[in-house]
Amino acid sequence: MNLEMLREATRAQMPDKRWKHTLGVVETAIKLAKRYGGDSAKSELAALLHDYSKAWAIDRMEAVIRENRLPPELLVHDKELWHAHVGAWAVRTEHGIEDVEVLDAIRYHTSGREGMTQLDKIVCLADYIEPGRDFPGVDRLRELAKQSLEKALVAAFDSTIEVLIQRGKRIFPQTVIARNDLIAQLK
Amino acid sequence: MNLEMLREATRAQMPDKRWKHTLGVVETAIKLAKRYGGDSAKSELAALLHDYSKAWAIDRMEAVIRENRLPPELLVHDKELWHAHVGAWAVRTEHGIEDVEVLDAIRYHTSGREGMTQLDKIVCLADYIEPGRDFPGVDRLRELAKQSLEKALVAAFDSTIEVLIQRGKRIFPQTVIARNDLIAQLK
Repeated sequence: MNLEMLREATRAQMPDKRWKHTLGVVETAIKLAKRYGGDSAKSELAALLHDYSKAWAIDRMEAVIRENRLPPELLVHDKELWHAHVGAWAVRTEHGIEDVEVLDAIRYHTSGREGMTQLDKIVCLADYIEPGRDFPGVDRLRELAKQSLEKALVAAFDSTIEVLIQRGKRIFPQTVIARNDLIAQLK
Repeated sequence: MNLEMLREATRAQMPDKRWKHTLGVVETAIKLAKRYGGDSAKSELAALLHDYSKAWAIDRMEAVIRENRLPPELLVHDKELWHAHVGAWAVRTEHGIEDVEVLDAIRYHTSGREGMTQLDKIVCLADYIEPGRDFPGVDRLRELAKQSLEKALVAAFDSTIEVLIQRGKRIFPQTVIARNDLIAQLK
C-alpha cells in the first residue's frame, strides 16, 4: 500500500478535526526528524498513522485489547492510552505495516516507555507541539523542542502528570518510567 | 527488648532534630490510629522506628542494600528512599523486631506501595503531617487527615510528585502505583 492510499484510509477513520491534527503531527515530525537527524520517511509514516484508532468506539478498542492480548493493564488505566496500542495493532492487521520502529512509535506515542527510540521521541513530541495545539505551556515545549528532544519530552510528560494530579486521575507508571529514563539520558 | 530501651537505641541513631521529628510522628501516628480504629501499639512502634537509619552515612546504607539483597532498584533512585528499607532491615537485625506489619510500615513509609495496609497509611501520613512539618500545603493535608487516610495520602503523594517535577528529579514509580491504588480505593 502506498502512502497516498494510507492517507485516505487513515482520513476515513476520523473526523476532520482529528485529521487536521494528524497533518500537524506529520508536518512537525518531519521537521523534528530533519532537525535531529532522524528518519524523515519513518517519521512521516508513524505520524500519519499515530491516531489511526483514536476515534474508534471504546467498545471496539476494548474488544481489540481483549481479543488480541494487548497489555491487559491498559484496561485499568485511562482510555486515552488505548488507541495507541490498538492503532499499532490496526495498521499492522489492516495495512500490513510491519516496520517495528514505526509500530512502536505509534504504540508508545501517548505513554512513552523506557528506552524510547529517536522515532518514538519524534512522534510523541510532535503530538504534543503540532501547530494546532494550544494548551497552557505548549509554547515553552516548542522552544525546548529546538534545544533537545529529551528536555522537551520531559517537560511534556511533566505537564501531563501535573494535569492528571490536578484532576485526581491515575498516572500511568510507564510514563513516569519514560520520564525518569529521559532525565537519566540528559545527565 | 522493651519500648523504653528501643526509644533509647533509636534516639542514639540520630541528631536531636530528627529525634524531635520522630516524637512528632509517634504522637501523630497514635492519634491517627485512634481516629481510624487502627492498632495504637503497632502504630507507636512503627512510628518510633520509622527513621531509625535516616541519619546513617550513605555508604553504610548502600553497603546494607548491596550485602543484604534489598531491592537493587533503590540504588538508582533518590537516596531519600534508602533509609526506609535499610531501617526495616536494621531494626529486625539489631533489635529482633519480627512483626511483618511493623517492618512493612517502616519499609514503605517514604515510597508507599500498592495495597498499603492501614498501618502503612498511618505511619506514612504521620510522617508528612507531624506537628514539626511546615512545608507549603501541610495544613491542607492535616485537614484532609481528619476526613480520610486515603484522601490525605493521595494529596501527600501529589505534593511529593510535584516537588520532584519542579526539581527535575526522577519519580519513584512505586509512589505513583501507591497513589493510583489509593485513588482506586476511594472510588
